[in-house]
Amino acid sequence: MKRHLLSAGDLSREDALLILDTAEELSKVSQRSIKKLPTLRGRTVVNLFFEDSTRTRISFEAAAKRLSADVINFSARGSSVSKGESLKDTALTLEAMGADAVVIRHGASGAPHRLAGWIRGSVINAGDGTHEHPTQALLDAFSIRRAMGRVEGLKVAIVGDVLHSRVARSNVQLLHTLGAEVTLVGPPTLIPVAVDTWPCQVSYDFDAVLPKTDVVMMLRVQQERMNGAYFPSAREYSRRYGLDRDRFAKLHDDAIVMHPGPLNRGMEISAEVADSPRSIIVEQVGNGVLVRMAVLYLLLGGSESAIGGGE
Amino acid sequence: MKRHLLSAGDLSREDALLILDTAEELSKVSQRSIKKLPTLRGRTVVNLFFEDSTRTRISFEAAAKRLSADVINFSARGSSVSKGESLKDTALTLEAMGADAVVIRHGASGAPHRLAGWIRGSVINAGDGTHEHPTQALLDAFSIRRAMGRVEGLKVAIVGDVLHSRVARSNVQLLHTLGAEVTLVGPPTLIPVAVDTWPCQVSYDFDAVLPKTDVVMMLRVQQERMNGAYFPSAREYSRRYGLDRDRFAKLHDDAIVMHPGPLNRGMEISAEVADSPRSIIVEQVGNGVLVRMAVLYLLLGGSESAIGGGE
Amino acid sequence: MKRHLLSAGDLSREDALLILDTAEELSKVSQRSIKKLPTLRGRTVVNLFFEDSTRTRISFEAAAKRLSADVINFSARGSSVSKGESLKDTALTLEAMGADAVVIRHGASGAPHRLAGWIRGSVINAGDGTHEHPTQALLDAFSIRRAMGRVEGLKVAIVGDVLHSRVARSNVQLLHTLGAEVTLVGPPTLIPVAVDTWPCQVSYDFDAVLPKTDVVMMLRVQQERMNGAYFPSAREYSRRYGLDRDRFAKLHDDAIVMHPGPLNRGMEISAEVADSPRSIIVEQVGNGVLVRMAVLYLLLGGSESAIGGGE
Repeated sequence: MKRHLLSAGDLSREDALLILDTAEELSKVSQRSIKKLPTLRGRTVVNLFFEDSTRTRISFEAAAKRLSADVINFSARGSSVSKGESLKDTALTLEAMGADAVVIRHGASGAPHRLAGWIRGSVINAGDGTHEHPTQALLDAFSIRRAMGRVEGLKVAIVGDVLHSRVARSNVQLLHTLGAEVTLVGPPTLIPVAVDTWPCQVSYDFDAVLPKTDVVMMLRVQQERMNGAYFPSAREYSRRYGLDRDRFAKLHDDAIVMHPGPLNRGMEISAEVADSPRSIIVEQVGNGVLVRMAVLYLLLGGSESAIGGGE
Repeated sequence: MKRHLLSAGDLSREDALLILDTAEELSKVSQRSIKKLPTLRGRTVVNLFFEDSTRTRISFEAAAKRLSADVINFSARGSSVSKGESLKDTALTLEAMGADAVVIRHGASGAPHRLAGWIRGSVINAGDGTHEHPTQALLDAFSIRRAMGRVEGLKVAIVGDVLHSRVARSNVQLLHTLGAEVTLVGPPTLIPVAVDTWPCQVSYDFDAVLPKTDVVMMLRVQQERMNGAYFPSAREYSRRYGLDRDRFAKLHDDAIVMHPGPLNRGMEISAEVADSPRSIIVEQVGNGVLVRMAVLYLLLGGSESAIGGGE
Repeated sequence: MKRHLLSAGDLSREDALLILDTAEELSKVSQRSIKKLPTLRGRTVVNLFFEDSTRTRISFEAAAKRLSADVINFSARGSSVSKGESLKDTALTLEAMGADAVVIRHGASGAPHRLAGWIRGSVINAGDGTHEHPTQALLDAFSIRRAMGRVEGLKVAIVGDVLHSRVARSNVQLLHTLGAEVTLVGPPTLIPVAVDTWPCQVSYDFDAVLPKTDVVMMLRVQQERMNGAYFPSAREYSRRYGLDRDRFAKLHDDAIVMHPGPLNRGMEISAEVADSPRSIIVEQVGNGVLVRMAVLYLLLGGSESAIGGGE
């Protein structure tokens, strides 16, 4: 493992499997009703969030606390950032304060890479602009493996606003690394031009893709982009790319449905599909904590023996 | 005890007394200079606040931390709620993350009940709309019992804006359960119509009620409602329903004064009365932590033996 | 030591040296890779911030957590303060909740003194209006001593907007107590009238002061005050009082450069100077945590033996 987790593309197949296996191990420990491991006692994890993201922030906070780390939350609201403090000065501050890991969410693509150049602790990219969100890709891969028994050889469709989605970008890279076949599905205006260089297929016809898909990963629609250059209208979008009961029926019986949340029920996914037994949306959330525990554990070099014991 | 604490009306006399007795026990432990009990080590308590409430949030946070629980604060500002995430999705998130208890404050009456239907952990209502605030009622009952030696048979006046007060609603129910006689006092526009079905008396004449009252509980006036349909004016309100020196003199010598805070000094209560030796307003705040410790302790099933020892 | 830390002027030479020596001791313990001391286990430190200040809040939070205290963050946004709760009521709340120390940042000069009159716990002034910021002065003195081997006899220039700077005010007092010779430098409109009574020199000519200075402490410029009554213009200010390469060259070879942060790179200090080997700006930040650990340790009376051991 490298010292940082900045991009899903940085992960070798071995790295990725080590993280998934470690998460599986941590899951077993948790089930033995051990809620808290002493692994990272005395370590400080800083959540440095320049954008709001409840799920991701809480998921990392819960993961770090279950490993007994101290967590300091730093949000851009109420921060010196509003006084014009640069990312570099913030980095130096965190560095000087002895942060062992910094989990960063930032609106600008590339901010985590810059941060990694300035501090000695580990940097974990928790979403940067429209660029990457590697722990989301890891939890998705972990969730697929748990539900389907494997990732390799599976056909995965990622559907919706790919253009603005860091989730799609990170997932394409990681799923390819793990041997899945990915097809991006969406209106032409929402498929990035650079997709030619990505290791995946592209389709504009959701209905044609459905029958030969094992995993359907729906992306969140940004309502604020509706009725603009990208979308014809919310209704039209939902009609062509929403996963409703009729489309769901076209999937084969073992296929599963995923969504990174938060959901727009009735827009990109119907409530009925989201709550169906073949939806693993709720499991994804819980798996997020396990995978982030694994990442923190591996990056911060918890001793191997510590994973087995509780307190 | 049930698994959740949603309404003061759900508490039997036995439940309520168990909570008050447990709080008393925890108070004795605290006085033996044991600041922290290991009871809830490894448990996660989430403060899910869709409305601001410093006192209540900090009181629950302090209570949970004194029992060694991990606390995660989730406020609606800076949350996915602003992205349109529904309460249900938030609930599923917390559930998946393994929250053992969720303390919820929400602007909509009934939100805690809905939440309780979606998660396995305990739900504690920390105030929902104008509906209920059961831990406030419990800390008030605990404070009365400490100051007066009993609750049963006491005459309690609850004074002010009853219509918008979840504190009044929860107190009427719990004090009745514990055998007190409650009289609601306020202008007719601020007494709810449904009061006919509540187990209490109603009066519009504060001065007439004072001499026969053991406990005066002043409610906070919402300044923003002044000069509207409900209030004639701040001055007029204060003149008729404010507890000033002259009214205070009409109480018998053992009567006590309470207020859930935050105070509007000079409006519903004068500074002189708020700071008098017969005001237990400060004690109420400290008792809030003890009562919330007791609730968390009982709902999360801390082992009986743990309450006696410290760390 | 007194019970509170309200003003740098309250500290005797012995008090100040005890804090600096304790911080040095804590630094040695930290270097032995002991990240967390059990000293304040079970104690509660409240960060009561009525103004935003990321650095200071996080620095105190990190300091308290490294001493194993529980930390509760209370920010004015999202607080009852917006409902009109007075500082006194907030104080009573914290008192009743058993806060062992309250770290307060407030926009009004004198607020920490008032708070200290109302609660039994220790009050630590983390900046009040334009008045004082004693832990900043302590960390600056600690940083100077580390870099130069001593404080006594050194010539220190504090440069910029002295009028609005609590940092300058506290530093003048503490550095004088510790035997340094302080010169304030800035445009006449930004030097307070009362400076006659301060134990320091004043100069309006930065270039004349530089050659005979051991320590240059640059103050942050409040951009929002530019182009008003105080400043001619940002450009003019920077030309006359900014520390750029040319001015830096006038310092003798052992002189050091400081800044309390956050920096306005290119305004009061050039990026080149800020990042030079003779700048100790980054060290200041890390030293802030050590000094605040020392203050919390000494005020909350951690047992003497505890400082040596880790967990």
